[in-house]
Amino acid sequence: MTTSLRSTLDFLLHHWLEADALTARERFADHSRETFDAVLDTSERIAREKFAPFNRLVDTEEPRTATQPDGTLRVVLPEATHAARRAYAESGLLSAAQDYAIGGMQLPYTVEAAANSFFAAASVSIGSNLLTSGNANLLMAHGTPLQKQVFAQNEFDGRWAGTMCLSEPQAGSSLSDVATRAVPDGAGFEGDALGPRYRLTGNKMWISSGDHEMTENIVHLVLAKIPGPDGKLVPGVKGISLFIVPKQLVDEAGRLTGERNDVALAGLNHKLGWRGTTNTLLNFGEGTYPVRGGAGAIGYLVGQPGEGLKCMFHMMNEARIGIGMAATMLGLAGYYASLDYAKNRPQGRPVGKGGKDAAAPQVRLIEHADIKRMLLAQKSYGEGALALNLYCARLVDEQHTGSAQAADEARLLLEVLTPIAKSWPSEWCLEANSLAIQIHGGYGYTRDFPVEQYWRDNRLNMIHEGTHGIQAMDLLGRKVLMEGGRGLMLLAGRIDATVQQAIQQPALAAHANALAGALAEVGAATKAAWATGEPAEALANAVPYMQAFGHTVLAWMWLDLALATLRADATLSIAASAGRMGAMRYFFHYELPKIGAWLNVVRQRDATCAALPEEAF
Amino acid sequence: MTTSLRSTLDFLLHHWLEADALTARERFADHSRETFDAVLDTSERIAREKFAPFNRLVDTEEPRTATQPDGTLRVVLPEATHAARRAYAESGLLSAAQDYAIGGMQLPYTVEAAANSFFAAASVSIGSNLLTSGNANLLMAHGTPLQKQVFAQNEFDGRWAGTMCLSEPQAGSSLSDVATRAVPDGAGFEGDALGPRYRLTGNKMWISSGDHEMTENIVHLVLAKIPGPDGKLVPGVKGISLFIVPKQLVDEAGRLTGERNDVALAGLNHKLGWRGTTNTLLNFGEGTYPVRGGAGAIGYLVGQPGEGLKCMFHMMNEARIGIGMAATMLGLAGYYASLDYAKNRPQGRPVGKGGKDAAAPQVRLIEHADIKRMLLAQKSYGEGALALNLYCARLVDEQHTGSAQAADEARLLLEVLTPIAKSWPSEWCLEANSLAIQIHGGYGYTRDFPVEQYWRDNRLNMIHEGTHGIQAMDLLGRKVLMEGGRGLMLLAGRIDATVQQAIQQPALAAHANALAGALAEVGAATKAAWATGEPAEALANAVPYMQAFGHTVLAWMWLDLALATLRADATLSIAASAGRMGAMRYFFHYELPKIGAWLNVVRQRDATCAALPEEAF
Repeated sequence: MTTSLRSTLDFLLHHWLEADALTARERFADHSRETFDAVLDTSERIAREKFAPFNRLVDTEEPRTATQPDGTLRVVLPEATHAARRAYAESGLLSAAQDYAIGGMQLPYTVEAAANSFFAAASVSIGSNLLTSGNANLLMAHGTPLQKQVFAQNEFDGRWAGTMCLSEPQAGSSLSDVATRAVPDGAGFEGDALGPRYRLTGNKMWISSGDHEMTENIVHLVLAKIPGPDGKLVPGVKGISLFIVPKQLVDEAGRLTGERNDVALAGLNHKLGWRGTTNTLLNFGEGTYPVRGGAGAIGYLVGQPGEGLKCMFHMMNEARIGIGMAATMLGLAGYYASLDYAKNRPQGRPVGKGGKDAAAPQVRLIEHADIKRMLLAQKSYGEGALALNLYCARLVDEQHTGSAQAADEARLLLEVLTPIAKSWPSEWCLEANSLAIQIHGGYGYTRDFPVEQYWRDNRLNMIHEGTHGIQAMDLLGRKVLMEGGRGLMLLAGRIDATVQQAIQQPALAAHANALAGALAEVGAATKAAWATGEPAEALANAVPYMQAFGHTVLAWMWLDLALATLRADATLSIAASAGRMGAMRYFFHYELPKIGAWLNVVRQRDATCAALPEEAF
Repeated sequence: MTTSLRSTLDFLLHHWLEADALTARERFADHSRETFDAVLDTSERIAREKFAPFNRLVDTEEPRTATQPDGTLRVVLPEATHAARRAYAESGLLSAAQDYAIGGMQLPYTVEAAANSFFAAASVSIGSNLLTSGNANLLMAHGTPLQKQVFAQNEFDGRWAGTMCLSEPQAGSSLSDVATRAVPDGAGFEGDALGPRYRLTGNKMWISSGDHEMTENIVHLVLAKIPGPDGKLVPGVKGISLFIVPKQLVDEAGRLTGERNDVALAGLNHKLGWRGTTNTLLNFGEGTYPVRGGAGAIGYLVGQPGEGLKCMFHMMNEARIGIGMAATMLGLAGYYASLDYAKNRPQGRPVGKGGKDAAAPQVRLIEHADIKRMLLAQKSYGEGALALNLYCARLVDEQHTGSAQAADEARLLLEVLTPIAKSWPSEWCLEANSLAIQIHGGYGYTRDFPVEQYWRDNRLNMIHEGTHGIQAMDLLGRKVLMEGGRGLMLLAGRIDATVQQAIQQPALAAHANALAGALAEVGAATKAAWATGEPAEALANAVPYMQAFGHTVLAWMWLDLALATLRADATLSIAASAGRMGAMRYFFHYELPKIGAWLNVVRQRDATCAALPEEAF
C-alpha cells in the first residue's frame, strides 16, 4: 500500500502543488525536497511499524472501563495504542508546522498533512491525534501568552493530549442548546494568571479521547454558557464561551499541582467503527472529584465571553478537514487492499463471442471489466479526495505565508471548500469501501480481510464534526452567500482558469467543456434556490446541492491533475500517468453526469419532502 | 413497526395485487381474506415474540464452534435461535404453500411471502429458514417420489433443515470451476431406492446453516462433478450434477439409520453482519466420519447427471428473490426505527427569514426538511422494493395457477425481474439503512440503537446468492435477450399499460410521461449496448445498466401503486394515501432522473474501465 500512496503523494506535492516552491518563502527557507522527503519517510515508517499491524486489534479490543477502588472509572486501552501514541509524539509531528521558537519544525502544513495521511491509512482510530494539534493550534490563535506556554506547548511536546467538548446529550448538531454552565470561581476569579477562572457544570457527549492514561494530562476545550445577571443562560450561540478545563490542575509553570479536576468519565460509547478511539460521555462539575473545597470543574476562559463558538470554529474547521482526510485515507486503504486482491485472486473467465471457454484456466479478478470499473471508481474517489484535501492544506499555507491578497483569497476559498473537503470524502470514500468489499466477494464481508473494517470506520465520517446536513446548510446557507458571494466567484474563477488551460489540450477539451457546463449549472441552481429569498425553500434540498457542488469540485480537481500529468509526462511513470488519465476520464464519464439529477430538485425548490405532513410517513 | 408494516402489506395485497381474487381459483378455494389475515396475524406475533427481542443477541453472540471429545467440531447457538426456529416450524409456515396432500395449507405464495416479511424485519439472521423451504421446493420439482417423501416432506414438517452447497473456496461466482467429485458408490450404486448413490469428496464454502443442532438432520443439496471415463472432471457447468447429501443417513422410511455421513464442519466464517446465521466451510468425504466402510460422503443423485445447475437454479432463483425480500425488510426496519426516532428526538430549529429563534424550544427532527428527505427516500426505497417483491411472488402464483398463457408470461417476467428483485433492494435498502443511521446522528453509529446492525446485515445482500456483477451479466447478457427478447417486450408492455392508465390522471400524467421516456431510454441503451454484438463491449457496463433498469422498474411500481391509491382512495387512510403519493413523487423527482448518468456509458459502450491496463491502477 505505502508504495502506491507515496508515489501518489509525491505527484500531488511536487508535480501538482509545487510544494518545493514554498521553500522560497522565509518561513520555510531551511526546508528542501530532502527535508520534506525525510518527514514523509519517517511517517511512513512509524505508520507501517506502529499503526498498521494493530488496526484490527484496536477494533476487536475496543476501549473499556475499569472501576477503581474509589468507585471511579478509568479507561483501559491496548498497549499497542500507547506505543503508537509514544512513537508519534516522539517523531515531533505534533508540532511539525509550529515555529522554531516553540520547538516546531516550521514545516509547511501541506507537507504535514501529507505526512499524517500515512497514519490515517494505517489505522484511522489509533491515529486520531489531530484533536491534540487542533486544540493547541486554537490556543495559539486565541489564548493568552501564558495559556499558549502552559497548555499548547505541552500538547505540542506530546506530554499532554487535547480534546474538543462541544456536543451534549441533548445538543448534538444544535450547539445553541449547549447547557453547560460556567460561573465565576470566587471573588478573585478574574485575577488567575491562567485566565479568568470559572466553575463548570454539565455533560459533554461524543468526546473523542475524552479520558485515557496515554498522557499525564488532558486539556479539554469546553463550550459553556456564563449565566446572565438573572442566573439564566442566554439562548443561542451568542451566549457560548470557551474554557480550558484540564483533567489535572496545573500551575503557571505547567507543573501538575496534584489536584484532580472535577471532570469524570461517565461512560464510553460503543460504536460501529473507529473503535480504537475512546469515545466518552464526560460529567463536568458533578462533584465526583471535589476540588479546592467543592464540586465544579475549574476552567479558564479563552478569548472573550460570548465568543466561544467563533474561537472553536478555528478548531472545528481544522477538524473537518481532518475528517475529510481520514475518510479519504480509508477510501484509499480499501482501494489498495482490493487492488491487491483483484491482482491475485483467480475467478471466472471473460465472455467472448462464443461464450466462455470453460476449459481455459480461470483469469484473475482484475481481468474482468466490472472489477476494473469498481477499482477505477475507488481510485477516482480516493485520489481525487486526496488532491482536494492537499489543495486545502496548500491554501492554509497560503493563508499564513502568502501575500495579503493571496492570503485573503485562500481564507475565502477555504471557507467555501471546507464543507466539501469534509462531506465529499465521507460520502464517496465510504462508497469506495463498499466497492472494495464487493470486489472481495464473500471474503469481503468476513473479518478475515480488512475492507469491512474500513467501511465501518468510514461510516462515522458523515456524522461527526458536523453531519452532512449541517455541512450542506453551511455551504448553501452561508458560504456561497458570504461577502456578497465573493467566495463562490473566487472558486468559479479558479475552476475557469483550469478550464481555459484544458480546453487547449485535445485530450481534455471535451472534459473542459463538461466542467464549464457543470459550473454554470451549479451557479444557476444557486441563484434559483435563493430566488424567493426564503431559507426554508432554498435549503430544503441543500444536501443534493452539496452533492452536485462536490462532484463539480472533484471534476475540477481531476481536470487540473490531468493538466499536471500532461505537463510532467516525460518525468513520470507512464503507467501511473495512464492511471491518472483513466481515473480522470472515469470521473467525467461516470460521475459528473450525476449532477443533473441532484440539481434538478434544487433549481425547482422541490417541496416534495418538506411539504409532506408528518402523519403521512 | 409492525402496525405500519401490516397496513402497508394490506394495501399491497388487497388494494393493489388483489390477492383475494386468487380465492376464485380451485387451488385456493378454501381461502378467504380471513384465512390470509390469520396467517399474517400469526406471523406477526411469532416474529414479535420470538425473533425481534433477540436480534441484537444473535449479533453479539454469534455462532461458535465447540470441540467434542472425539476432536470433531459442533456449532453452538444461543437458545433464542433454537426457540425461534421451533416456533416457526410449529406454525406450519414451512409448508404453507404446499399441497394439502403433504400437510400444506395451499396458501398462495403471495401471502406466504408477505407473512415471511415479518420475520425478516424482526431478525433477518434468525429468520433465514428460506433455504429449507427452497431446498424442499427444489426436490418437489426435480426429485423422485421417494426423494420427495423422505427428504422434502421432513423438511416441510420442520424435522430436518436444508442447505444449498454451491460455492467452493476457489469457486465463488465461477460455478463452472466446482471441483467436488462424485463417483459411483460400488457396483450396485444405481439400485438405491433413494436415488443413484455416489461418494462425494470436496470442500464447500459460505454454506448458510451448514451445521447446527436445531434439527435432527440436515439435507445438503450439493453440486458436484461425476468424472468422465478418463477420471477427469468435465470443464464448465455442463459437467455439474446435483446430489442429496444428508448429514445423518436415513432409510427409505425417513428414519435415521444411526450412521453419521462423512460431512464435517471445517470452520465458521466470521462476518460483518447477518451474524445470527451460521456460515460454514464444510468438508465432504475427507474421512472425518468414515461411513459404510470408508471415507466419502454418501449422496443421492437428483435429476439427470450433468443437469445439476439447471435443477439448482430452481432453488437459486427462489433464494435470490428471498435475498431481495430480506434486503427490503432490513430497509423498512431501518425506516421505521428512524421514523420513530425523528418523531421523538428534539434537535435544532428551522431557519426562517430572520435566521433562527434561539429562544424558542427545539423542534423534533422530523420537522427539518432534510430529515424528511431522508425519511421519504427510505420509504420510497423500502415500500417500492416490497411492492416489487410481492409482485414477483404474485407472478409465482400466476405461473402455478394461471392460464397457460398467463403462466408462460409470468415465467418470462420472473426471468427478467429476478435480477432486479435481488439487486435493487440490496443496493438501495442498504442506502436506506445508511440514511437511517444518518437521521440518528451520533447515536446512529452506536450499538445502543438497532440501525447500525441493519446496515451491516444488509451489506451481505449485494454479494451472496450471486453478486451485483453476476446479476447484471444475467440481466443484460441473458435475460433481455432470451427467446428473442420476448421477456423484455413483455415487461415493456406491462409498464406501458400502467403508463396509459396514469396518463389519464392529472396528478400522474407528468410522471407517466417520465416513465415512458425512461423505458424508451432503457430500450435504446439495450440496443446500443449490443450494437456490435461483442459481449465484451455490451457487458462492460452491465452494472450501470442494471441500476438504470432497476430504477425504471421501481418507478413503474410507484406509478402503479399511485394508481391503486387513487382508485381506492375513499376506503384508505388519508394520511397513508398522502404518504404513498409523496413517496411516488419523491421517486420521480429525486431518483428516476439518475438513470441518465448510468445509461450514458451503456449507450456509448464506454471502455474507460475495461481498456485501462492493469499496471495503470
